[in-house]
Amino acid sequence: MSAIPHSLVQKTARVSEEVTRPFPGSRKIHVTGSRPDLRVPMREVIQAPTRTAAGEEENPPIPVYDTSGPYTDPEVRVDLMQGLPSVRSAWIQERGDTEVLDGPSSRYGRDRAADPQLAHLRFEHIRAPRRARAGANITQMHYARRGIVTPEMEYVAIRENGRLQELREDPRYAALLRQHPGEAFGARIPEVITPEFVRDEVAAGRAVIPANINHPELEPMIIGRNFRVKINTNIGNSSVSSGIEEEVEKLVWSCRWGGDTLMDLSTGKHIHETREWVIRNSPVPIGTVPIYQALEKVDGKAEELTWELFRDTLIEQAEQGVDYFTIHAGVLLRYVPLTARRLTGIVSRGGSILAKWCLAHHRENFLYTHFEEICEIMKAYDVAFSLGDGLRPGSLADANDAAQFAELETLGELTKIAWRHDVQVMIEGPGHIPLQRVKENVDKELEDCFEAPFYTLGPLVTDIAPAYDHITSGIGAANIGWYGTAMLCYVTPKEHLGLPDKEDVRDGIITYRIAAHAADLAKGFPGVQLQDNALSKARFEFRWEDQFNLSLDPERARSFHDETLPQQAHKVAHFCSMCGPHFCSMKITQDVRDYAAAQGMSAQEALEQGMQEKAAEFVEKGAKVYRKV
Amino acid sequence: MSAIPHSLVQKTARVSEEVTRPFPGSRKIHVTGSRPDLRVPMREVIQAPTRTAAGEEENPPIPVYDTSGPYTDPEVRVDLMQGLPSVRSAWIQERGDTEVLDGPSSRYGRDRAADPQLAHLRFEHIRAPRRARAGANITQMHYARRGIVTPEMEYVAIRENGRLQELREDPRYAALLRQHPGEAFGARIPEVITPEFVRDEVAAGRAVIPANINHPELEPMIIGRNFRVKINTNIGNSSVSSGIEEEVEKLVWSCRWGGDTLMDLSTGKHIHETREWVIRNSPVPIGTVPIYQALEKVDGKAEELTWELFRDTLIEQAEQGVDYFTIHAGVLLRYVPLTARRLTGIVSRGGSILAKWCLAHHRENFLYTHFEEICEIMKAYDVAFSLGDGLRPGSLADANDAAQFAELETLGELTKIAWRHDVQVMIEGPGHIPLQRVKENVDKELEDCFEAPFYTLGPLVTDIAPAYDHITSGIGAANIGWYGTAMLCYVTPKEHLGLPDKEDVRDGIITYRIAAHAADLAKGFPGVQLQDNALSKARFEFRWEDQFNLSLDPERARSFHDETLPQQAHKVAHFCSMCGPHFCSMKITQDVRDYAAAQGMSAQEALEQGMQEKAAEFVEKGAKVYRKV
Repeated sequence: MSAIPHSLVQKTARVSEEVTRPFPGSRKIHVTGSRPDLRVPMREVIQAPTRTAAGEEENPPIPVYDTSGPYTDPEVRVDLMQGLPSVRSAWIQERGDTEVLDGPSSRYGRDRAADPQLAHLRFEHIRAPRRARAGANITQMHYARRGIVTPEMEYVAIRENGRLQELREDPRYAALLRQHPGEAFGARIPEVITPEFVRDEVAAGRAVIPANINHPELEPMIIGRNFRVKINTNIGNSSVSSGIEEEVEKLVWSCRWGGDTLMDLSTGKHIHETREWVIRNSPVPIGTVPIYQALEKVDGKAEELTWELFRDTLIEQAEQGVDYFTIHAGVLLRYVPLTARRLTGIVSRGGSILAKWCLAHHRENFLYTHFEEICEIMKAYDVAFSLGDGLRPGSLADANDAAQFAELETLGELTKIAWRHDVQVMIEGPGHIPLQRVKENVDKELEDCFEAPFYTLGPLVTDIAPAYDHITSGIGAANIGWYGTAMLCYVTPKEHLGLPDKEDVRDGIITYRIAAHAADLAKGFPGVQLQDNALSKARFEFRWEDQFNLSLDPERARSFHDETLPQQAHKVAHFCSMCGPHFCSMKITQDVRDYAAAQGMSAQEALEQGMQEKAAEFVEKGAKVYRKV
Repeated sequence: MSAIPHSLVQKTARVSEEVTRPFPGSRKIHVTGSRPDLRVPMREVIQAPTRTAAGEEENPPIPVYDTSGPYTDPEVRVDLMQGLPSVRSAWIQERGDTEVLDGPSSRYGRDRAADPQLAHLRFEHIRAPRRARAGANITQMHYARRGIVTPEMEYVAIRENGRLQELREDPRYAALLRQHPGEAFGARIPEVITPEFVRDEVAAGRAVIPANINHPELEPMIIGRNFRVKINTNIGNSSVSSGIEEEVEKLVWSCRWGGDTLMDLSTGKHIHETREWVIRNSPVPIGTVPIYQALEKVDGKAEELTWELFRDTLIEQAEQGVDYFTIHAGVLLRYVPLTARRLTGIVSRGGSILAKWCLAHHRENFLYTHFEEICEIMKAYDVAFSLGDGLRPGSLADANDAAQFAELETLGELTKIAWRHDVQVMIEGPGHIPLQRVKENVDKELEDCFEAPFYTLGPLVTDIAPAYDHITSGIGAANIGWYGTAMLCYVTPKEHLGLPDKEDVRDGIITYRIAAHAADLAKGFPGVQLQDNALSKARFEFRWEDQFNLSLDPERARSFHDETLPQQAHKVAHFCSMCGPHFCSMKITQDVRDYAAAQGMSAQEALEQGMQEKAAEFVEKGAKVYRKV
């Protein structure tokens, strides 16, 4: 970290304007719930009116799900040095089942806090960690099972609904809300997401609200098959790169483009300090793979890992506020040889660390043997499990094989144990799978793991396109999301080749937003076609600005348009660059409609009456579609 | 076209080195058929050996389907001024059922040939057109139905097989040929594609070999559900851009990255001359939408279109060598009003031209009423129909609606008529469809159009991602290809926004190659997983160069890798930039395997014997995976 001068981190840490500027044509709104401090942020895209011969027709604002946090709120000035405002502190405090500790209870956390050499890197306003009182269970699942609707649950209900109930009662939205019936493959999505529904889904283990009590800054979200499909993004410095400020910039960038959660996969130095900065400034749940840091602590020697060291790492991270841990407890000793004849062996980092440990000691995976103790830690902070698929296939050839499915069955067994502790669980999935074998993965996961939310990496549907693996995996992701996966872990164009830069991250996120949205549409999630309909209407009416603003990436849509037709004037012109000004199919359709309307009859009626003279008149009066320039 | 100086076109027309340079680590091979002039080009990727403790193990060359034509053949020096060498002239001539005309028989063709103003634009070596002798039918379908296996049929059989029979007998390929069973949804793909199978598929109308007798330069290919899924790309200047040389450059670029066919959708000036240059230099079938040019001839006034003018345009283009025509004969007068209440009306250019014509004259679409006469022209040159979907949906909201499906039924009716003339037919399809309603399109097409090959544009599975519509549509394309679509029309990132540049074309093509390949894998096309397996093995063994060379876009894969680790040395290093040199999961797996092998037993056996001391020994001897740098 010596590359980061003292002053840079401590005195002036900031993210760039590029990652925080408000979205064009949009405004931040907040929907208030049953208490004044329960304010759910959304973004509303403002539209221009439709200009017709008869005058102007209003186009109503379109609400969109907003993961960007306070960074895009012009009312909030975020100071990275202070961290984000706390959303949940009062809720956590009111429950009265937690206590504030004097300081970190992990040995490592204490050592780092006491190390003067780290002063220049350290986030300044570290809160004392909070933990469940002795004997208390403070997980969202625990509350749900006791019938309690927490503010977190109400928050996600409002967030998932996206103001749909109000919109349904507003006649301006009537035409825009039409939607194809979905095929949900057994998902049961209600017309309205109520807080009680959220509670019941969390209680049943079908959904997870990752929300560590030490991450009060987060804006709660939910992961489950009966909710919107979510996407996870990854950041992380490796020993090859990169600095703290850069990681925070990536976090904000990820939230901006639509990352619902973020995993900090750092393997380099100063993981602890970087994580503090990231969590304090993150409006989205943060996940980690604690074994990565544990491995750093034993200088990369997997065989030297111990349960005690790992346990200390879990507590260290839980007290910083990590919301979910990837735990590779399903990599059992007896499964490891099942990978020996694979084309690509074990490709999961966590999986190979544990496989190596198991073989070296010829003992069972310590994450498996200590699983109940891990649950005890998880429930003291409400950290959710993301049970890792350490034996996932690294190539099509290895997809759906014995090793992969053996591990999945063990993850199911572990799910039951975690649920006995009321600890929230999601299940990680692959990886590389040919299209025709994707559904089998979801079906098996739902059965073996009792409908715990599935969280998959892609899957890539072919191995032959490195540099385009956001796309090979986006295809798999859309399908697996449709079949029932609750969260999709993104893949960038640099997968298999190198570390993603900012544009790679953006490409990866937008690709996954597309996949998740395609899945929501396919499942028939209520109201989810609204944005498509509004954008298509804007496109048809040549409201270019609205088309840009309603798109997943307004900035790129605009810049692509402007490459061919840079003049601002063209954004209201009734033609576009594809066909040129002489001819435009959209314009023709509009003229056909206008004609029918001008005649006081529908086109259908005109045709039915077969009035040849009206047709002739049309030719004469016809709008000058093919005008010369 | 005044932007193109005389000298540029006539004296020095050439394509850039960028679009013609041979692929790295590859060589062009030719598989010879039953006659010496039947030489099917393929590309073979050469691999480095695997280095093990025991020495080197050979990795065999991997054949890949090659659309790039003579441009990537170091043995051939292509001169755009001369056009490509003729592949099929002898075959056509030998059949003895065609005659060479004195000159163009279309009025427009003669006028252009006689116009001295066009001399500087004109391709110099225009061949006199060829036409079926009076009374003869010279279509591939006609031959097939008479039981004849043409050289074209044998050519595509060899091409589809990709040397699979030989590879199956070669032990070096045994492990690499393993493949998941497919789910082909009723497609019947044989283990070996024989010339007779090709003939039978063409005879049944389930496959099309677009091969105009006036395009002898083309390397024959086949489009059908029981063959590899193909992709089409589009070029075309509009009045906003672009020159002849640029269009030829785009053609070669498209072939390079994997376009199987190409449509010239030019709407600007000098369409006729541009097309001549394109066809003479094209190794892939060329399609057009003749109504576009017809419209230019009436100065953009759709109502002024006549059958006579259109007929002349068909002959003009057929005599230049266009291999398939999009004909929007299903846009019936009575269907047009079905679009009036759509969110996005009629978005197909051809569809709106004809809708406008129908409404203006209140008469039935002249393409429909003159369909038999069109068939007569098609069969005189063997031009295939691509029956256009003029009423395809332009938004999710309009997907699978009455207008779309009414037209599809009419296309089925027209298919039967064309087949009575032994004219080859494919059916165009949408467009914008949510994922859960994609399959319905294929099922309906197969039923209504009697399994004529389906050729779809995307479909886009969401409307909200302009600037990423190669991806929104790539998802739909992979799925629709899997379900049975025979050819996928590509979409570039600029769709809906502007005209694609070279990089957009590349992005669009690679995305569609991914989609087509994912579909082939999902259908279980024999041998199609070979490239995936080889690439994954190379990846696992850190043969970086082989990984790059086996990928769809070797150049981009390499450059992405080099962004993070530019040193050449790293391409053989046993780690990559993702995890850094300290830790690498692939390396661990390899070490586990090496250990088991060194002990003279499999990992399984070692575990079964439960030899604790061997495990301990491993720790001691263990390869230094986590070495310090």
